[in-house]
Amino acid sequence: MTMTSETVAAAIAAWSGLSEAEQARVFRAFKRDEREQLFLGLRAAEQAVLLLRMPVHERLTYFRVLPPDDAADVVQQAPAEERPRLLELLDDVARAEVKALLAYAEDDAGGLMNPRFARLRPEMTVDEAISYLRLQSRRMETVYYAYVLDAEQRLQGVVSFRDLFTADGRALVSQVMNPHVISVGEQTDQEEVARLFASEDLSAIPVVDEAGRMKGIVTVDDIVDVVQEEATEDIQKFGGMEALDDPYLETGFWQMVRKRGGWLAALFLGEMLTATAMSHYEEEIARAVVLAVFIPLIISSGGNSGSQASTLIVRAMALAEVRLRDWWKVARREVASGLALGGLLASIGFLRILVWQAVGQTYGEHYLLIGATVALSLVGVVLFGTLAGSMLPFVLRRVGFDPASASAPFVATMVDVTGLVIYFTTANLILRGTLL
Amino acid sequence: MTMTSETVAAAIAAWSGLSEAEQARVFRAFKRDEREQLFLGLRAAEQAVLLLRMPVHERLTYFRVLPPDDAADVVQQAPAEERPRLLELLDDVARAEVKALLAYAEDDAGGLMNPRFARLRPEMTVDEAISYLRLQSRRMETVYYAYVLDAEQRLQGVVSFRDLFTADGRALVSQVMNPHVISVGEQTDQEEVARLFASEDLSAIPVVDEAGRMKGIVTVDDIVDVVQEEATEDIQKFGGMEALDDPYLETGFWQMVRKRGGWLAALFLGEMLTATAMSHYEEEIARAVVLAVFIPLIISSGGNSGSQASTLIVRAMALAEVRLRDWWKVARREVASGLALGGLLASIGFLRILVWQAVGQTYGEHYLLIGATVALSLVGVVLFGTLAGSMLPFVLRRVGFDPASASAPFVATMVDVTGLVIYFTTANLILRGTLL
Repeated sequence: MTMTSETVAAAIAAWSGLSEAEQARVFRAFKRDEREQLFLGLRAAEQAVLLLRMPVHERLTYFRVLPPDDAADVVQQAPAEERPRLLELLDDVARAEVKALLAYAEDDAGGLMNPRFARLRPEMTVDEAISYLRLQSRRMETVYYAYVLDAEQRLQGVVSFRDLFTADGRALVSQVMNPHVISVGEQTDQEEVARLFASEDLSAIPVVDEAGRMKGIVTVDDIVDVVQEEATEDIQKFGGMEALDDPYLETGFWQMVRKRGGWLAALFLGEMLTATAMSHYEEEIARAVVLAVFIPLIISSGGNSGSQASTLIVRAMALAEVRLRDWWKVARREVASGLALGGLLASIGFLRILVWQAVGQTYGEHYLLIGATVALSLVGVVLFGTLAGSMLPFVLRRVGFDPASASAPFVATMVDVTGLVIYFTTANLILRGTLL
Repeated sequence: MTMTSETVAAAIAAWSGLSEAEQARVFRAFKRDEREQLFLGLRAAEQAVLLLRMPVHERLTYFRVLPPDDAADVVQQAPAEERPRLLELLDDVARAEVKALLAYAEDDAGGLMNPRFARLRPEMTVDEAISYLRLQSRRMETVYYAYVLDAEQRLQGVVSFRDLFTADGRALVSQVMNPHVISVGEQTDQEEVARLFASEDLSAIPVVDEAGRMKGIVTVDDIVDVVQEEATEDIQKFGGMEALDDPYLETGFWQMVRKRGGWLAALFLGEMLTATAMSHYEEEIARAVVLAVFIPLIISSGGNSGSQASTLIVRAMALAEVRLRDWWKVARREVASGLALGGLLASIGFLRILVWQAVGQTYGEHYLLIGATVALSLVGVVLFGTLAGSMLPFVLRRVGFDPASASAPFVATMVDVTGLVIYFTTANLILRGTLL
């Protein structure tokens, strides 16, 4: 929570690169008070490993310094058979709190929140509130915002410490509090919570149950981690695999192969359609082998433009910059982009064929027709790639899937088959009677 | 900073979808005190647009509520010719602060920091410190951490409000402060600052100059935006384009086409090597057209496995989970993954050829040799893709480029040419004397 010395900071930074035995040794090398700082600076999974390697009597010292939300994370990261023993280390109040938190899903507001927050009654005076908070402050993660609750624990308003500080001491809390509080429900997804923090510039959000009773607060320092995690998940889905959940070097080999192999095999099955499509055009290739030469160039252009478009839309959706109802606006824009980008590649491709022909007579007497076929196919393929890549995230979201599954490899696979069809159809139109 | 009513929150959420005229109208529809909340909730670019549409006498009211770091952002977002007029709205002190901030790059610590922070002298007593902070609190963005400076403004330590609160009132600030403060330099990149916040669970980091004099603080609520922005940049680079910098729907059409077209054309030029490679194998294709059938399947498998590997490594590098010196550990792991994943696809591919042969006699008498060629090529191509995809980010970082440029399309392009060479070399080895 607070400040750490530089050697402790260096140890934290290097932590994930160390073996478990090395971690234990490094931990021991620090002085007592620095050990606590070091322990607090680690991620929950690392804290769990370290705790379980300590002698039982030491575990208590470090485990009890964690606020209940962090303690719950550690318990969640420990192997199932160790969990009861960790819970026993806590005092009765803390154990009850941690158990309550464990009932929430890890990635909703209830799983993120801290049940210890500063609470005030509306009928207190400002001076009473300040002394009351002074008493509470040792037990709280933050006293900088205090929440005003009625007798039924329903949230009435919020007051910052700073507001109390600058108010008249005899005023009532209900007079200085802000009654407009943004709150979230216990089941609100952490991604939604992170978006609220970012868009509203908040430092804490209260979590309330369905009856409006306040259950805890989520603070902004918990959210920085969430934003990082969610971006990592999106990026990994984007690379065409399941999200790993753990850091790369800490993920088991077979677990990683499974998460990559599943998508890779699925993409491979989809890509098999290209073999089917190609069989269909074997006769054309046999008659004009030169057509085969441009196949990788053309289908990859479709894949690249498609992955650009889907990246843009998936990310814009994740940041709520683009919503479902914007699909038509996006489609029009992407048709225009597709034509412009397709035109650009078509010109480069056509020029390339002219130059090669001038230098080496590579493409025979029909080089202009070949050039036209390649150029026209490029416009078609890039246009299709752009449109498919930008619309796929909308379709996925509409049917309830995560738009981030519209990964670069997924889009490329989808576009490859169509690219072949576009290319050979164009060739049949332009080259019929000459090469074909 | 604090809490916002729900209608204001709704307006902020819908803001980017409105035209400038609609934005001005919605703004006017709110009551005076809500307008300020609404204004504070917008992004800097939106604040600039709104301010410039207001009558001059109103601009002053809203512009002056911004803390200096946010005011500097607004000035940066306004057209160059409007900037002097915006600066004139500020009082002398604020104008000097904002001008000083404008000298920093937008994405380093100096550009993020707020020059107003709570400062204490080490020789004050705790009681003196509390009353002094009470006086300062109206002017500060946060008083929850106070920084202890000597007479030369050098940073000596930090003390949280909560520490002061629970300490003996007659103790000296130098006795209760924590002298181990993590600080950053003015030029520290915002990505580095964000990583520190995430790994150390801080809520504020002081910024010091080379002489150790404290210049300002960066608070965690500014960092949530930074983390989002940096992830967006990485994701867009990952999709094979330049980062857009602005939300998708707010980016001008030609600007977007330029940012996508540049990379698309570069990838196209690289992909042209496939046409050169294919020309080289025209003879083989003419003799065994069946070979052409599997080209898209084989090269795309290399691209997909490569993009998985590069995604994993690029993200792990961004989070500092993997460092340059880990390259050998990663290489060994990826060789093993490549063999496992290649073996998986090879089995599926071989099976597919057996089934198609059994059903339709598709591949003639040499179907087993064709199957072996495809299977062996798949192992080679996936192994190469995995290794190239995982090593490219290391190479890019080593020579000083952003590893995130190792995008899925970039890796796929790199692997396509090699994939063709691997495939036709394997074919020449296995099919020489029968089909070739």
